[in-house]
Formats: sequence, C-alpha cells, structure tokens
Amino acid sequence: MVHETVVMEGHLIDSDVLRKAFNRIVEEGGEFEVREFRVGKTNDEPSRATISVTARDPEALDRILEHLAYLGAASAALGDAQFAPAEADGILPDDFYSTTNFDTVVRIAGKWVSATDQKMDCALVLRGEGPACVKQGQVKKEEKVALRGAGIRVRPPERSRDYSVFGFMSNDISAEINKGIAIAGTAREMRRAREAGERIVVVAGPAVVHSGGEVHLARLVREGWVDVLLTGNAFAVHDLEKSILKTSLGVCQLSGRAVEGGSRHHLFAINAVNRAGGIAKAVDSGLVSSGVMYEAVRKGVTFVLAGSIRDDGPLKDTITDMIVAQKAYVEALKGAGVCLMLATALHSIAVGNLLPARVRTVCVDMTESVPVKLSNRGTMQAIGVVTDVGFFLERLAGELRTTA
Amino acid sequence: MVHETVVMEGHLIDSDVLRKAFNRIVEEGGEFEVREFRVGKTNDEPSRATISVTARDPEALDRILEHLAYLGAASAALGDAQFAPAEADGILPDDFYSTTNFDTVVRIAGKWVSATDQKMDCALVLRGEGPACVKQGQVKKEEKVALRGAGIRVRPPERSRDYSVFGFMSNDISAEINKGIAIAGTAREMRRAREAGERIVVVAGPAVVHSGGEVHLARLVREGWVDVLLTGNAFAVHDLEKSILKTSLGVCQLSGRAVEGGSRHHLFAINAVNRAGGIAKAVDSGLVSSGVMYEAVRKGVTFVLAGSIRDDGPLKDTITDMIVAQKAYVEALKGAGVCLMLATALHSIAVGNLLPARVRTVCVDMTESVPVKLSNRGTMQAIGVVTDVGFFLERLAGELRTTA
Amino acid sequence: MVHETVVMEGHLIDSDVLRKAFNRIVEEGGEFEVREFRVGKTNDEPSRATISVTARDPEALDRILEHLAYLGAASAALGDAQFAPAEADGILPDDFYSTTNFDTVVRIAGKWVSATDQKMDCALVLRGEGPACVKQGQVKKEEKVALRGAGIRVRPPERSRDYSVFGFMSNDISAEINKGIAIAGTAREMRRAREAGERIVVVAGPAVVHSGGEVHLARLVREGWVDVLLTGNAFAVHDLEKSILKTSLGVCQLSGRAVEGGSRHHLFAINAVNRAGGIAKAVDSGLVSSGVMYEAVRKGVTFVLAGSIRDDGPLKDTITDMIVAQKAYVEALKGAGVCLMLATALHSIAVGNLLPARVRTVCVDMTESVPVKLSNRGTMQAIGVVTDVGFFLERLAGELRTTA
Amino acid sequence: MVHETVVMEGHLIDSDVLRKAFNRIVEEGGEFEVREFRVGKTNDEPSRATISVTARDPEALDRILEHLAYLGAASAALGDAQFAPAEADGILPDDFYSTTNFDTVVRIAGKWVSATDQKMDCALVLRGEGPACVKQGQVKKEEKVALRGAGIRVRPPERSRDYSVFGFMSNDISAEINKGIAIAGTAREMRRAREAGERIVVVAGPAVVHSGGEVHLARLVREGWVDVLLTGNAFAVHDLEKSILKTSLGVCQLSGRAVEGGSRHHLFAINAVNRAGGIAKAVDSGLVSSGVMYEAVRKGVTFVLAGSIRDDGPLKDTITDMIVAQKAYVEALKGAGVCLMLATALHSIAVGNLLPARVRTVCVDMTESVPVKLSNRGTMQAIGVVTDVGFFLERLAGELRTTA
Repeated sequence: MVHETVVMEGHLIDSDVLRKAFNRIVEEGGEFEVREFRVGKTNDEPSRATISVTARDPEALDRILEHLAYLGAASAALGDAQFAPAEADGILPDDFYSTTNFDTVVRIAGKWVSATDQKMDCALVLRGEGPACVKQGQVKKEEKVALRGAGIRVRPPERSRDYSVFGFMSNDISAEINKGIAIAGTAREMRRAREAGERIVVVAGPAVVHSGGEVHLARLVREGWVDVLLTGNAFAVHDLEKSILKTSLGVCQLSGRAVEGGSRHHLFAINAVNRAGGIAKAVDSGLVSSGVMYEAVRKGVTFVLAGSIRDDGPLKDTITDMIVAQKAYVEALKGAGVCLMLATALHSIAVGNLLPARVRTVCVDMTESVPVKLSNRGTMQAIGVVTDVGFFLERLAGELRTTA
Repeated sequence: MVHETVVMEGHLIDSDVLRKAFNRIVEEGGEFEVREFRVGKTNDEPSRATISVTARDPEALDRILEHLAYLGAASAALGDAQFAPAEADGILPDDFYSTTNFDTVVRIAGKWVSATDQKMDCALVLRGEGPACVKQGQVKKEEKVALRGAGIRVRPPERSRDYSVFGFMSNDISAEINKGIAIAGTAREMRRAREAGERIVVVAGPAVVHSGGEVHLARLVREGWVDVLLTGNAFAVHDLEKSILKTSLGVCQLSGRAVEGGSRHHLFAINAVNRAGGIAKAVDSGLVSSGVMYEAVRKGVTFVLAGSIRDDGPLKDTITDMIVAQKAYVEALKGAGVCLMLATALHSIAVGNLLPARVRTVCVDMTESVPVKLSNRGTMQAIGVVTDVGFFLERLAGELRTTA
Repeated sequence: MVHETVVMEGHLIDSDVLRKAFNRIVEEGGEFEVREFRVGKTNDEPSRATISVTARDPEALDRILEHLAYLGAASAALGDAQFAPAEADGILPDDFYSTTNFDTVVRIAGKWVSATDQKMDCALVLRGEGPACVKQGQVKKEEKVALRGAGIRVRPPERSRDYSVFGFMSNDISAEINKGIAIAGTAREMRRAREAGERIVVVAGPAVVHSGGEVHLARLVREGWVDVLLTGNAFAVHDLEKSILKTSLGVCQLSGRAVEGGSRHHLFAINAVNRAGGIAKAVDSGLVSSGVMYEAVRKGVTFVLAGSIRDDGPLKDTITDMIVAQKAYVEALKGAGVCLMLATALHSIAVGNLLPARVRTVCVDMTESVPVKLSNRGTMQAIGVVTDVGFFLERLAGELRTTA
Repeated sequence: MVHETVVMEGHLIDSDVLRKAFNRIVEEGGEFEVREFRVGKTNDEPSRATISVTARDPEALDRILEHLAYLGAASAALGDAQFAPAEADGILPDDFYSTTNFDTVVRIAGKWVSATDQKMDCALVLRGEGPACVKQGQVKKEEKVALRGAGIRVRPPERSRDYSVFGFMSNDISAEINKGIAIAGTAREMRRAREAGERIVVVAGPAVVHSGGEVHLARLVREGWVDVLLTGNAFAVHDLEKSILKTSLGVCQLSGRAVEGGSRHHLFAINAVNRAGGIAKAVDSGLVSSGVMYEAVRKGVTFVLAGSIRDDGPLKDTITDMIVAQKAYVEALKGAGVCLMLATALHSIAVGNLLPARVRTVCVDMTESVPVKLSNRGTMQAIGVVTDVGFFLERLAGELRTTA
C-alpha cells in the first residue's frame, strides 16, 4: 500500500469538488482519510482540506492523483512542471498533459504562472512568456509541451454564492423549469457582461430561422447585444434567402412545407451573394437589406461561418477548412463573458470545446439531449433551457428592452 | 386565365405522384381537369394521366408547371432544354435549373439524355457527352448550365409492388415499428445489392462506438458486407482509442461516465496514430489491431473521414476542407445500392444530399427527429428505424450470418 | 385462385385511399387488376374504381377484402350486415366488427344507415333506431352486435381540395414547419367551427402550466374560444395552485427549480379546494380567482378531469373511475369540430381514440413522438406542431384577437 | 435579523446534502456561518456540521428552516412533533407536514419514532403505534395529522462509498453512458436483493412488447427474478394478444406497421380473456400459454393492472378506479429493494411517487426526458439508461444467467 497527501482549497462544497474527489478515489480502488478540514464559514471564505490517499500500488496512486489534480488538488510534494519537446508538428510526447476548461496555473522555476487561452483537450505549450493551451494539431516541432505530473493545478469555477441564476442552475436541465427565470437570468448576465466589458457570443443553428427567431436575433444584434456570431453556412443562407427573396419561396405558403424544387431558392440566394462578392458586399450593394447577417455587417459584429460536410454552396464567407475555422472561432471567443448556444448541437459542442468554464453559458434546444451531451463532454457550466428557440429569442429581446 | 396540358406517366398512384400533383396545383391557386386517365391494370403496367391545368396568370402557371415538372410531369409543348454559360467559377445564371434526387433526363437536340451523378440541389452542366449534376461551387466559368423550363424531366422512384420492405415502408418512421421486420428487410437488401454488384455504404457516427455497436460493425466489415464507410474524425478516433488503449480509459470502469481529464486518452490515440503516419500505417505497424478502422484497412474498404468544427486532432486521414471532403464522399458513393445511416444527423443529411433517391436507405437513430429531417430535406426514400444503434448492428450481423 | 370485384368511390387519389388499397392487396399476397377507373375531373367530382382482386385461397381473399372494407371498398356482392347477440355484458361474439374512426354506414334491411357516436375500436351495436359505436366494455348482454363481412362500409375523410391548412398538412409532422402557418390555420378552423356551431375542444396536460401557457389558455376560455376542456387532475391542480398561492411557492424563485418539500403547496391547493367543496364552489367563494379552471367555471365551459395512477389528492372534481371518465369524455366530445391537443401524450391518445377522423385536430408537443404515436394509432387527421406549448398558446391567442 | 442554529449529520458531502443546504439558505435570502464541521475521516464515518443561519425576519427564517429540515437538518431547539386532527375525510389541517421519500423520524413524547410506509407527498398520520405516510385522500376525519415545524427529521439516502454502480451513478442520465456497466450493476443489485430477501419490482409499459422485449421479461419472470409487476391494461393486452393469436395479427407482416382494422385483434384478445373470466383463468384454461402474464400467473408473481383513460376493454383484471389502483400499488411495493422502470412515463412517475428513496431504481427509456422528469419530481435515486428496452431486457437476462 502506498499513500500521498493532497491539499484542496476553494469553495469545495459549493462547487461540488470534494464529493467528486471522494468518489474518484473510491472508484479507482483507493481509500482516503480527511486529515484536516476547515470549512469556509461564510459565503466569502474558501474551504481547505488535507486528504491522505491510499492505493494498492504506485500506478493506482498515480491514476488517483491525476484525477484529483484535474479537480484542483495540489500534491503536497511540490515541484516545477516538466516539459518535453514536440517530436514533430502536431505530435506530442506521449506523457503530455491534457487540459480541462478550468483556469490552470503552471509552476515554472518555482513560480505559478497562469495558462493563456484556456480551453479543454489541449496541450500546454511554452509560448512567449508563459504556458498556452494549444490544440494538438497546432503544436510545432520542438515546442516545449507540459507533461502530466507535478507543477500543474486547476481552479474549478466556483458556484457563486450570490443571487445569480447562473450560480445555482449550472448543470440543471429541464423542459419544465421556469423559463421566465432562466431568460431573466440570461438578460441579467448580458447586462453584467456589457458593463464589465466582456463579449457576448451567440452560437446559432438554422433552426433559429426555421422557428422565426431570426427577427428577434436581428434586433438583438441591431441593439448592440451581440459581439460575436459563430455559426455555419446553413444559418447564413437561410437568413439571407429570407432577405433577398422577401418571402420564403422554397416553402409552400399554404402548408409551410418545403416544396419540390424548393432548394432552388436556397441556391439562388447563395449565387446572388457570391456574385456580389460576399455578405458584406451584398449588404453594401443593397441586395441584402434585413436579417441577422445584415445587422451584423452594419454593426460590425464579428461573424465566423464554419463549413460542414452537408453545406450547399457554400457562401464565399464560409471557411471550408476546419483547422482554419477552429482558429477563427478561437480568436473570436477571446474576451467572451456570456455565450448563448441556440439550437445547434454541432456548433454548440464545438464552442463548448473552446470556452473556459468560467464563461456563463446558456444552451437552448427542443430536447434535453444537447445540454446533456454538453455536460457529458465537460461544458458543465451550460444551463439547459428546453424550449422553442424562436420563443426564447422573442422573450429575451423583450426582457432586454424592458429592463434597458 | 391561362392553361396548359401536361402528361404524367409511371406508377402514378403507387408512387403517390398524382396526389402530390393535385395538391400542388390547388396550393398554388390553380385548378385542374383530368382529361384522360389510364391506370396500370396490374403490378407491372404504368399509369398515364393527361391533365389540363388552369391558373390566373402566366406567372402562376409557370410556377405550377415547374412544380409538376419536379414530380415528373412533361409539358405537352415539347422543346429542347435551354442552357446558358456560368458567369464565373461557382456563379450560375439566375435561371439555373436545380436538380432533385430523382433520375433526370434532359432533351438535347431532340434526344432525351440521362443526367449523370444524380443528386439533389445541383446545377445540370454539360460535361463530356451529356448533362451532369454538379454542385454549384464546382461549376466552372463558361460551362453550359441548364435553365429551368422545357426539356427537363424527372422520374420519381417507383414504390415497387413486390415483397420488399423497402417498397412499402418508405417514409415511415416509428419507434414502435416491428424492428425485426425492418432489420430482416435491410439484410435482404444487402444480399440483393451484393448479387447485383451494387455497393453497400455505411454512414456512421460516434454513438456507434458509445453504444458498443462497433464490435458488430467491425464484423460486418470483416465479413465483406461493407464497401464504403463515410464518417468523421470522431468516430474513427473513438474506434482507434478502443483498439490502442485496450480499455476505454477515458471512462470510469465503475460508473461508465467520462472522467476528468479523460479526453487525454482521446488525444493520446490521435497522437499515436498520427505519429505512425495515419490509420493504414498504424494498422500495418501493429499499433491498431482491432476495430472498424482496422477491418476497413485490412479489407480494403474505402473510407472517408470528413472533418468538422468540433474535432480534436484531427487524424491525418481526416479531410479538413469540406469542399474536398464532399468530393471524396461523392466519389465514394458511386455505384451505391444500399446505404445504412447509423446514429449521425450531420453525416446522414450530408449523404442524403448526395444520394439518388433510388438507393435503398435505412436511417437508425434514437429519436424520430433525424429520419423526419431527412424526409423533409428530400431524402424521402429513407426508412427510419428508431432504436439503439448497438442493438440494430448486433441483430443485423446475426441476420446476415444466419441467412448467409 | 379465387377472386372478387370491389368498387371504391370518393376522392380516391387525394385521400390516398387507392394507393393504400393497392399496397394492402400486394402485402397480403394478392394481385389486382383495375377493371375501370374514372377519375374526378375537378376538385368537386369523386373518382370511382372497379378492382378485381385475386388471392390464393378464400381465407386470404377474406383478409384482403376486410382490409379493403376498412378503406371504404364495397364488395360487389351486396347483402345486409349480420348481427349476433352479445353473450354477456362486455363479451362480444368472436366475429364482431371493430370500428375505425371513419364515418360508417351499415346496411340493414336493404337500407344504408349511418352509425352514431363514430369512434375507433368499438363494437357496432343496434341501439334505438340504428347502429351505434359502443366500447366493448359497455355492450350489454343480448344486444345485437354487427359481425365483420358484408353490409358495412366506411367513408375515409377526404382531404379537402380547398385552401385550408388542414386539407394539406394532415399527417405532417415536423419541428421545422412554418409554425405561423399552422397557427393561422388553427385560428381559421376555430372561427369556422364557431360559425358552424361546432364545439371546440381543448385537451391539456400539466406542461401547459409549466410553460406559462395557462395565462393564454385562460384568455382563450374567457373570450369564448373553448367549449370543452378535457384534462386530468394534475393540470387542474397546477392551475389552481397558481391562483390560490399567488406565486408558485413550490418552486425556487431564484432558480425556477422545484424545492425540497415543494409539493406541499400542491397538496395545500388540493386541500383548500376540496374543503371548499370542489372547483366551482372554490370559484364561487372567491378562493380561486384566476386561471383556466376559474374562467371555465365562470364561462360555463364543460370540463372533465380524468384521474390517473400518478395523481395526488385527487380533487373532488376528478373522476377516479376510468370507465366513468371515458363515458364523460365521450359525452363531452359530442358535436366537436376542432380539437387542440396540448402537451399531453396520455390524454391526447385517449381523446384520439374517441374522436371521429373528420374532426380537425392539432397536436402540439415538444417532440415528434406524440404526433407520430397518434398517427400510428389511427388518429391520422392530427397535424403535429412541434413547439413549446406556451409559445403556441400565446401566438394562437394573438392570432384570434387580431383577426376577430 | 434573526438566527437559529441547526445540526446536520450523515454523509453530508457524499450525499450532496451540505451543498444543497448552503444553496437553499442563500437562495432564500439568508446567510450562514459554519460553526463547527467534523468530516468523516473514512468511508464509514459520518460527518457532522453545526450551522448558524441568519435571515431578515422570522418568516424567512422559518422558510429556510423548513427547507433545511427536508434535507435532514435538526433544529437545535428540540421539541415534540405537533399534531392536529383532520377536519373531515381527506381534508388536512392547513399546516400539515408534507413528506419526502426520505426515511423520516418523528419525535413523539420525547422519543424518535420511524414513520412507516415512507413515500413522498403524504400526510404523516398517527395510526396504530406510530406515524404513517398516508395519501391525503385516505386520511380519515379526526385522525391526528403531523404539522410542519419541530419534531420531524428526514435522513437523505447516503451515496454508499462502495463498489456499486448505484452509489455513484444516481441522478446520472445519458444516452452515451456505458450501458454494459449499468446493466451489470442492475444485475448485481437484483442478486443482492434476492439474497437480502427484498422484492424486485418491474414497472412496464406497452413498448416492452412493441420492442420485442416481452420474451426476455417473460424469461426473467420464469426464472424467478421478478416479484411484482406493476403495469396497466395496455401492456397486458399486447402481451396476451401475442400469446392468443400466435402472430401479431394487427400488424402487417411485411411492413411491421399497424393495419386498418388491426385493433380488432386487440379487442379480440380482451374479449377472449374476459370470457374466460380473467387472466389467471385464461392461463388455467390453456387459452394463454406464453408471455409475461402467463409466466406471472404460473409463478405466482403479484401483478397490478392500473386502468387509464386511454384503455380499450378493459381486461377484468384491470383496476379501473385510481384510488383502488394506487392502494394496490402501495401494497405491492412493500418490501421492495429494487425497481426496474421500463419504457413508461405514466407508471414510472406513479411508482416513483410511492417508493422510498432508498430503493435502487433504474429507469429505461428511449429519451432522456423520462429520467429527467423523475428526478425533477423527487425520484432522484433513479438511474437513467437511455436505450431500447428490448435490448436492455435481452442483455439483462443474459447477464443474470451468466452470473447465476
């Protein structure tokens, strides 16, 4: 039997960290003894626990300690983080440390340095003055890559003990939740972000347009509530088609169903915008005079259209290479404080992969499955609101106007 | 008031074409009179209808006639198809004809010529000896593009009046359907395709691996039931991770849940395969010795991994540019006779866009929403089987073995 | 080989009847020859087909003919319907005819008589002047029960060739459909029913209250748009609780989630209403002064609360015996012209079982599964609108007011 | 400002009780200070916390203390529970205490007495030697009903720190979870219950039969793995129909879809069984010779069929009055140690309402929504397994046989 003592600090109970640590130790076949526990007396004080972990062999102990490190535990045995060079472009040393979306600090020459560009499933690479979270494929040969083991700590986000819906609802998903409360909370966070100078990011799928929500999203953009729009080719085409063809001509006006040959209008819109030279030029020329993309161009909102295998066209603005598109998403997400994920599994999971856990995130979808997936993949901060996205946007726009 | 007479031929009742034609005329504000109707007396005889259509003005009549043309109606007024040159690479003349996934013939110099590479939402471009379905973005400057109007006819697929599940179940979706019948029908179609020399295509999402279905899919590949595998980076990584790390190390063996830091194993697998130089080399070197990708390499099965914005890595084999990936999918789909779409909305819709409607298609998913979406987007031949994909694959493999 | 000739009349193509007939013959191993077919030339003319059916033996032919009869086919060989007495209360002769939800006529003494109380899965019993659709359990000993075979014909509802959304959308289900069109069509039908003196029935589940839709439903009741409310104990309790306790006290006002012990408020509301002597008295006494039940009492709207195995309480108004509750539902449905099914699988399927197919029916739910189930169980007239029921009600109330 | 000191004991961290307590205090506008906290050092030791709670007025403090009581907190100020008589049959005093599904003790004459028949949303009534959980509607006039306030404590179930899947997965829901682990854990619990002399309860919906799972469920019954079967009329009819008519005659053998008039077979089966005098007699007479109901009769398994508003028939065995049916469910659930909820929202929620939280519960369904609903309604112990119920049963039967 081998053991080691670890220390955990923070809002260990509020953030559900201590429970997870206990679970993980037992799941991996270990045992623990809480040597010391000092609980934060009030809302503001952090707690601190000293835990002795026992396992049957050093390998099992290592496995447990690695899990605990991902929960923020610091091994009593201190030491600098270890680094090894990347063998080739995109090839890491096998013992690489894989990041979470929690804020991370790395001990270099006895000093704890914060990692930059925090996001999950990255390598920690020494770049410039400190360690950065870099996607595996973007690591260059010979760059110094952090190895798992000592010298790396994470700080799980704290469930704030204040009156924010986001402090209490994290990881809650339900079709029956009081949506008014969730929408009011979202509006409150958007105003907070505005004041704090953080960016508000909207991730949107084509169902925003199908559900009639694009009218309200366009208004949010026009009124300055959106800084970044991350979406794909299909959303933009649907939105542009509505503006160019005035009516949704690919849809029977009697039944609301797509008609045979209706995709012609879809292709027509792409053709017209591409002939104009892209979305911005189509707005300048007057071809496009309403809608989300129109407002985004007028307002100077950053938008990134990531291509996908099912695209028609695509639009000239659509980035067809996924490596380039991911980089553009990463760039656009800098400074994000609030993120609305609207009716898209693909882009929501993509953005969840790129966001630090501290960003207040709301995921709106018709079923529980997208928020459940996000949470299972580590985007545990996302609050799931199960409703019609058109409804959500209408209400959110109303709420933001009322309380302006 | 203006009118025109059209003729429709084929299994007008079985294929539900006549009903749709009547609906469309009335929906667009027109009226009709059936001048002559000769019904096929038996299973083998086609029916023939001559219909006089009346509308309030020439524009309305044109709109109706275009809809009817997409249903296979031929205007009595004959004439060659009209063509105009593409203005620039990827820019069509505004009056371009947009294809369906029904087999299409084009009248050129008085002769009806079949279009090649039939798929929906394409331009019809004169290339080589005849008209080809070409994605908008791939049309080159000055190529001749067919215009809508006379000289283009489609042939809706006929619901065969024989004992095939596929003849009767098309467009049926239910969680309660007798899955045994659907699975037996799928096996029958796969054997038929085998004998007919048609290709069997599998489109797979990561849930195939999550549900434990990859064992059965690997067996289907090994036993020669799969010719083409169309999927993305994530499916391949999950499959390779299971082979390389022997156990699914990113998952708690007690609870089955992803653990903190568990994605490391995901990244590790990508790293190892990329270091080896790609999937085929990883199989050759012995690094990968089981699983779907392993069997595909060993069997020489064509596989295409299309990238997406949410990918980790990606694997060297993953095509990151969507234009290139779409071309590779199109190429791989040539000669397809059967297509199994397994637990993936993204790739299923992508492949549905590229398949002619005559390909026998089964879509397996946990909810009705993917088959409903496919059908709404024109892939109406897809039979929806709402079940656990692991269960489907296990049963299908059993059925194919039993009846071999 | 044996054969028989049948005649079918009506909108055979528009109503999709002929296609189903052909399918059924082939599925059952038979063959057919269309002897004569006269298509309705215009919107108003019915079609007529004479079909010769061949099968391998008399039993197979019988089976086919029975299927065709359910589609409205009349065997050329005429004859009166046969009857046999019920052996005991609730026990039918084994050869009983089982009804559909299509209007049915029965040949008695050479005369065709319409069945009353048309609904599916009933016996046809001679009561009073003619045949009535009676639930199996309600048939009394010695009553005359119609047997399958000659003398019974059904008339499938015709998809009207006019500008009603209901004529074209039947059996269409989609989350992506243009909901505005479906809601406008619903409002149009409600006004039509008003003018025609037909009753408007609302079937509601508790999610109407959870989604905040009860405010809009209360307004619809107040403004006279609802004649009958069919629901269960839970819906009424949630609605009453909101009125009595003013705020939804069982729910955390910060997070919108149910709190520990929150059901107390649920039980409290039941207690208070039962103490008052039931809903009507609770309204009279001023205990309940708002909400759907309040408006229903004030407006004299018929409401039936059917109990279920998961009920709390129940309220005194709740009918706890299902036989009694079914009878009350049947009674309340008389004269129904429009039926809105709102966010309840249980009550929607129950009501679908009791409605003739001619009633214009809309089913609103968050997923495709409820409308798909309804359609599979024979309530094929139901249009599925996949959206948040709160949203639907808000929009419907707005639409009815605008166009008043 | 007012304050009070409460004490909490148990596995406060593992069971997530302390975090919930902190949340609730802050949500209700209060503040807290942890006076003393002694954490259980090892897996076996309970923890103990003394917390001082402050609120702005006595009403707010009461509200907080009531919430904390539902989490197991004991007010330092001791006292006996207060009781008041029921005003009338089914009418409680307004200050009644509403139960949770956690084990509850009541202080009577200075002694803590355990409540019997623990289930949620009940009154605590003095009956016989101690307090019993009694459904509101069943309380008799003048019976002593416990009031909220002092003298009542609950004991939240402890997440066991051992190697059981149930210890760690509670409240986890996912379609992607490793189902093999969940199924193995279920089998392990069933064997544990067998050895401990606890009863194994199966709650089943009709989809068990639709999915082909009834074969495996019948085997589980035959092999002695089921003590109680709680279901409704529809499940039993589908199961009996399969046995009596040998083939599922209401379904097209080619397409697997229900056919017109297919419900006749459903009604025929009801008719035949009712003529025989009920299910047991139908088994005795040889009419029914296979299936779940057959095995249940042969094995002497308790079954309760609760009626519902959507029933055909019903069978003579079906209890049509919901009050009677609830009582029968309650009776049958006595001694339950494991509960499998199979593909039924209605009966699962009903049974969840009647089960103490300590019963190991698994909920199998095709979507996340049923387990999410269960959890929201307080059946938080239920593990959600999102899969095809036919698949689950086949695997479970295999697992139980293998490891027998």
